[in-house]
Amino acid sequence: MTAPDRVEIASSRHHYAALIGRGVLDQAGHRLRAECPALGRRALIVTDSHVGPLYGGRTAAALREAGYDAAIATIPAGEASKSMAGAEDVAEQLASAGIDRHGFVVALGGGVVGDLAGFVAAIYQRGIPVVQIPTTIVSQVDSSVGGKTGVNLRAGKNLAGSFHPPAFVLVDVATLDTLPPREFREGFAEVIKHGVIADRPLVGELADAATPLDLVALIRRNIEIKAAIVKADEFERTGLRARLNFGHTVGHAIESVAGYGAYLHGEAIAMGMAVAARLSRTKSALPVADEALMLAALKRFELPGRIPATLETSALLAALQQDKKFVEGSIRFVLTRGLGSAFVSAEVTEGEIAEAIESVR
Amino acid sequence: MTAPDRVEIASSRHHYAALIGRGVLDQAGHRLRAECPALGRRALIVTDSHVGPLYGGRTAAALREAGYDAAIATIPAGEASKSMAGAEDVAEQLASAGIDRHGFVVALGGGVVGDLAGFVAAIYQRGIPVVQIPTTIVSQVDSSVGGKTGVNLRAGKNLAGSFHPPAFVLVDVATLDTLPPREFREGFAEVIKHGVIADRPLVGELADAATPLDLVALIRRNIEIKAAIVKADEFERTGLRARLNFGHTVGHAIESVAGYGAYLHGEAIAMGMAVAARLSRTKSALPVADEALMLAALKRFELPGRIPATLETSALLAALQQDKKFVEGSIRFVLTRGLGSAFVSAEVTEGEIAEAIESVR
Repeated sequence: MTAPDRVEIASSRHHYAALIGRGVLDQAGHRLRAECPALGRRALIVTDSHVGPLYGGRTAAALREAGYDAAIATIPAGEASKSMAGAEDVAEQLASAGIDRHGFVVALGGGVVGDLAGFVAAIYQRGIPVVQIPTTIVSQVDSSVGGKTGVNLRAGKNLAGSFHPPAFVLVDVATLDTLPPREFREGFAEVIKHGVIADRPLVGELADAATPLDLVALIRRNIEIKAAIVKADEFERTGLRARLNFGHTVGHAIESVAGYGAYLHGEAIAMGMAVAARLSRTKSALPVADEALMLAALKRFELPGRIPATLETSALLAALQQDKKFVEGSIRFVLTRGLGSAFVSAEVTEGEIAEAIESVR
Repeated sequence: MTAPDRVEIASSRHHYAALIGRGVLDQAGHRLRAECPALGRRALIVTDSHVGPLYGGRTAAALREAGYDAAIATIPAGEASKSMAGAEDVAEQLASAGIDRHGFVVALGGGVVGDLAGFVAAIYQRGIPVVQIPTTIVSQVDSSVGGKTGVNLRAGKNLAGSFHPPAFVLVDVATLDTLPPREFREGFAEVIKHGVIADRPLVGELADAATPLDLVALIRRNIEIKAAIVKADEFERTGLRARLNFGHTVGHAIESVAGYGAYLHGEAIAMGMAVAARLSRTKSALPVADEALMLAALKRFELPGRIPATLETSALLAALQQDKKFVEGSIRFVLTRGLGSAFVSAEVTEGEIAEAIESVR
């Protein structure tokens, strides 16, 4: 096996590394020992009912092989676990496992597991380390890096949480082999988004079906993009990190109107990106060819580039108003002037959004 | 009215001020505006069913007078509110009140309110500011300063939480006038503890019934002691902050054996301090006169300096073992060699603790 790729990530709290390779899961314990020698001995692996049966035992064995004492907590798969009650349940399991301030959490799974387990690690005994072992494209290229953790409230998604950067991120691309194809593909919405906002050649490569997918290199490159953005604006204060929300404003409205679960997150984001690109054409002179290239990349992964008639414009606008603050009729919206760069505009009106939605039907 | 006393508190996150005076509650809005000009306009005052009816309306009026938009959330008084479910409930009320990342929380009440509201502020939208307006002795001299926030789990007290230093602390000693006398007195356990670990003359003054209580000066002096300790070891890493646990190891065991609520926290801590002082005599040569002076100070405030027969030594030891880690028969325990200083010993055995308990019956 070749050596895994490595990305160093800087945070205000501490620096940490992401290792990306194929088959590295079985080296988890030894890699962790080498990367984080100060970690204590006791760990709780938090995983879900889909990922646990596939990789929970192997992860625990890999940790034990390096001398760690690893228990497993399995949460029900799905967004409903990402709640305060879910966090409390995992925290009680940490206590039952005898984990004190010197222990740590291992998040093994997709975004829900990473967000929830990271949040519990942030608050248990006022903070213990978390190691992220993401097993989906989105969690590998996005949510496992950057320190955002959280749970949902009735009032909205991710409304409670903490900035809690991981101690270490271990990405085994072999875990993607067991993803259902639709869930494998949806992750590419965030990958293409990274290209749109920060890496023009990436969009071109993804749009070209002749370019084979080198998953290790692709994920390393995406983590580098995410890490650079997080380094520039870790706590989302300057607007730089907000560029990561390209496609998400309308994407969230689509999820809300369609009902969570009707579309996968990446599918809703893909539609939101189509609207954001169309708006960018009128508001910031995005070349038609750039929009077409982005849509071609979405298409390669069977991601929707059009809004279906079932999602009415008026309903989407109502959801937007629920979610975002319109100040004097305008909203903050991420636009691009050309693939590979993005900026936050405060001057997008409701009417312009409606027009863009209508024109990508 | 004379100008309030002022203490500056340094934290790794930000510096903040505590103002202490009589009648300052009605100036809360203007004081806040002057101290924290960057705070947003919208606030949620979190209080409980005891304090809210007394001071909720006045606090809201004082904030509104300075241009803030203040809503009130009232939690049931008592330790049971300090839970993950309680935190979720307050977080939902923040959302209902339309508070976003630019809003803030005002904690108006004793330790339960301060710990819970501080924790919710720490996690709501990944952290918004909290202003502490403590209304009990303990919360004024101890829990409102230093940034520890948290809730209880079934597995133990304060097992979930966050370090989240307040933006500002406002202490109106007039709020102490409405405390039931027993609750007023119990707070002095922590005040005397501060003297024992860091301010010998304070113990002497408190033991002397002829010395009148100047509450403003007393609380200012206690906040200074707490602030110095927190500055030296904010995250409880070096053992310096652990000195604040003088009397708490056995105190917690007493609370657990007696059942929470049988004794007030300060009463249990007073008994724990008596055991810690007796242990200090044998383990670190605390002079008998020092022990006597501490007990005299406790007595002035009708705080117990002896362990009643109902609390069996074997039960207390069992509770201790549940709570603390004995490593090769020894436990970490805060001792004093002389009033005004304290240190953490790792060499106190179960047998020695049993002996000390028996000898203060």
